[in-house]
Amino acid sequence: MSKIETNKALVKRLLDEIWGREDFSHVEEFIAFPYTLFNDPNDPWDGQSLDRDGFVERVRKSRAPFPDQKFTVVHWVTDETQVAIAWTWDATHKGDIPGFPATGKTLAMSGMTVYPVIDGKITGHWQVADRLTIGQQLMANKA
Amino acid sequence: MSKIETNKALVKRLLDEIWGREDFSHVEEFIAFPYTLFNDPNDPWDGQSLDRDGFVERVRKSRAPFPDQKFTVVHWVTDETQVAIAWTWDATHKGDIPGFPATGKTLAMSGMTVYPVIDGKITGHWQVADRLTIGQQLMANKA
Repeated sequence: MSKIETNKALVKRLLDEIWGREDFSHVEEFIAFPYTLFNDPNDPWDGQSLDRDGFVERVRKSRAPFPDQKFTVVHWVTDETQVAIAWTWDATHKGDIPGFPATGKTLAMSGMTVYPVIDGKITGHWQVADRLTIGQQLMANKA
Repeated sequence: MSKIETNKALVKRLLDEIWGREDFSHVEEFIAFPYTLFNDPNDPWDGQSLDRDGFVERVRKSRAPFPDQKFTVVHWVTDETQVAIAWTWDATHKGDIPGFPATGKTLAMSGMTVYPVIDGKITGHWQVADRLTIGQQLMANKA
């Protein structure tokens, strides 16, 4: 595989094993710790560098209110040292989040993320998610 | 120049000539019309395909309330057919926007954009901007 294909494969494993299935058994093969949230506005861990335990905690707590959440990658842009993805996110709001007890609503959001890759592992991310749209969906009157 | 360098140069011209200086005199050299906003949630032109006049109108109307706005590219990720950028935006809120008359506040936001390149020109964009943070900044009490 080319370096570009190798880098892309790392992000596919992050999305599938970690965000898809909460399977952390091989996480050290594609994530370097500490894992840094260089930019992720309004994420509770924005700006932090997480060790393995902190990384696992963030994934579990982020997924808990949205157990059926699904990321779909719309665009991949990959070079020798970074992977950028444009994605959509779909989920049912089944658990409480700050300010919003579970509503049961179906939510949809888009976002983009860039992952730096150093020595064959992802070292963190720089991300923007369309959280304004989520707020609008949560505040809208139920249909 | 490699195709990757050529693609990157197109986006640099878009940011410099169009968003930086509202200089549309050479826009046809790097933008293909219609220019499509494939995804740009809460942008008034989201989903539209703009001809040259519509493209110019969007840039002028978007910049009008923020005449000193500045985009700073934090990350570039470029391949043979796309350019992704992660950026920060700084501006002074000097003109009215819907729901918010000019406040004079200094605003800061981050975002990411992916530009597809076909036949040597940018054909549109897929973008997410952190508009929630702008809302929080506008609603916060003045210091």
